[in-house]
Amino acid sequence: MSYVLYYSPGAASMPVHWMLLEMGVPFEARLVDIDAGQQHDPEYLRLNPAGRVPTLVVDGVPRHESAALLMLLAERHADAGLAPAPGTPARGEWLEWMIYLANTLLPAMRDWFYAASDGDPAGADAVRALAQRRIEAACARLDAHFAGGHAYLAGDKLSTADLLALVLMRWTRNMPHPATVGWPHLAAYIRKLRARPAFIELNEREKLTEWRNDAQ
Amino acid sequence: MSYVLYYSPGAASMPVHWMLLEMGVPFEARLVDIDAGQQHDPEYLRLNPAGRVPTLVVDGVPRHESAALLMLLAERHADAGLAPAPGTPARGEWLEWMIYLANTLLPAMRDWFYAASDGDPAGADAVRALAQRRIEAACARLDAHFAGGHAYLAGDKLSTADLLALVLMRWTRNMPHPATVGWPHLAAYIRKLRARPAFIELNEREKLTEWRNDAQ
Repeated sequence: MSYVLYYSPGAASMPVHWMLLEMGVPFEARLVDIDAGQQHDPEYLRLNPAGRVPTLVVDGVPRHESAALLMLLAERHADAGLAPAPGTPARGEWLEWMIYLANTLLPAMRDWFYAASDGDPAGADAVRALAQRRIEAACARLDAHFAGGHAYLAGDKLSTADLLALVLMRWTRNMPHPATVGWPHLAAYIRKLRARPAFIELNEREKLTEWRNDAQ
Repeated sequence: MSYVLYYSPGAASMPVHWMLLEMGVPFEARLVDIDAGQQHDPEYLRLNPAGRVPTLVVDGVPRHESAALLMLLAERHADAGLAPAPGTPARGEWLEWMIYLANTLLPAMRDWFYAASDGDPAGADAVRALAQRRIEAACARLDAHFAGGHAYLAGDKLSTADLLALVLMRWTRNMPHPATVGWPHLAAYIRKLRARPAFIELNEREKLTEWRNDAQ
């Protein structure tokens, strides 16, 4: 199995990058310099017509959508245990969290950051206000889940849902209400996941200095 | 395996209802009368704290999120062939379409229909304008996919992605630009899927008369 990951530091490629490190499988990482507009280069657009990161080239075939890539990697490397096995009770819970993050938090984050470029800039404030409301509701839901005694999102074991959730939480760090403030159970979960060696390695590789346990 | 589906006609429960009929597995369907507010009944909120449809009670455990339920049913009934098998080339493509529909079209539809109740009514027009732009871009993307000679979304065989896509397309029927108009390849795909006996049966069971091939 061969993997080439096209990534940008801190972007939607981050959970996929993290997962590859967490599993310890070989891969090649190629930086897409978003600030320099490399996502619009004709060569990159052949791999990803939408001009976004990540692209994961899997055995020569370019694939997209972070949540889909996490699910694909989980089943290609079932021995890594980053998803409950099919047929186990936690499987439905894991699928539900993956889809919830993908269809609620991820699009709200897109609205928060890209309202003015995806749509009419005159309407961006209204779009961002709704996004903020939804993101805060999601943080409250996660906090309630952990307040209930769960150690992780699905099946009380680390899974791709946690990797995706943590990166989404990272994106709140400069929002009016960051995920680390006011939701104590969520904050404890964040600190626990940020302490994982693969997450620390990920930050080193992506040259990210913010939002690390040692940066607070 | 036992299934109890809580549904509302034409709602996000529709692709799950369709899939159960398409596979021919036994299930019990229970109507949630949205107009009468039954989704807020304490009894229903115990099954679905968000007060939405669908809920699918799987072997006694309530599960949610349409896209997740479709994926769960696909792996519980692998012999029905409604998802490419793990390890096959079409698997990554199927996951990508499922997530694309879940994180792009589905939230845009929520914005289109619920902007005023999910957020500040004063900002609803701006939210809906962006939603419309995204929905039309998704229709154009689907049309381009079928213009390229594909018979279905993933792997050139009917899958859960088609069931989800068709219901999303149905929701455009009263929008300024319905999916059946101006995208000829998408329109042909819609007519083909609507001709399936299980879709016809679905409309009978949910007592839906609009957006059927025999209603045009």
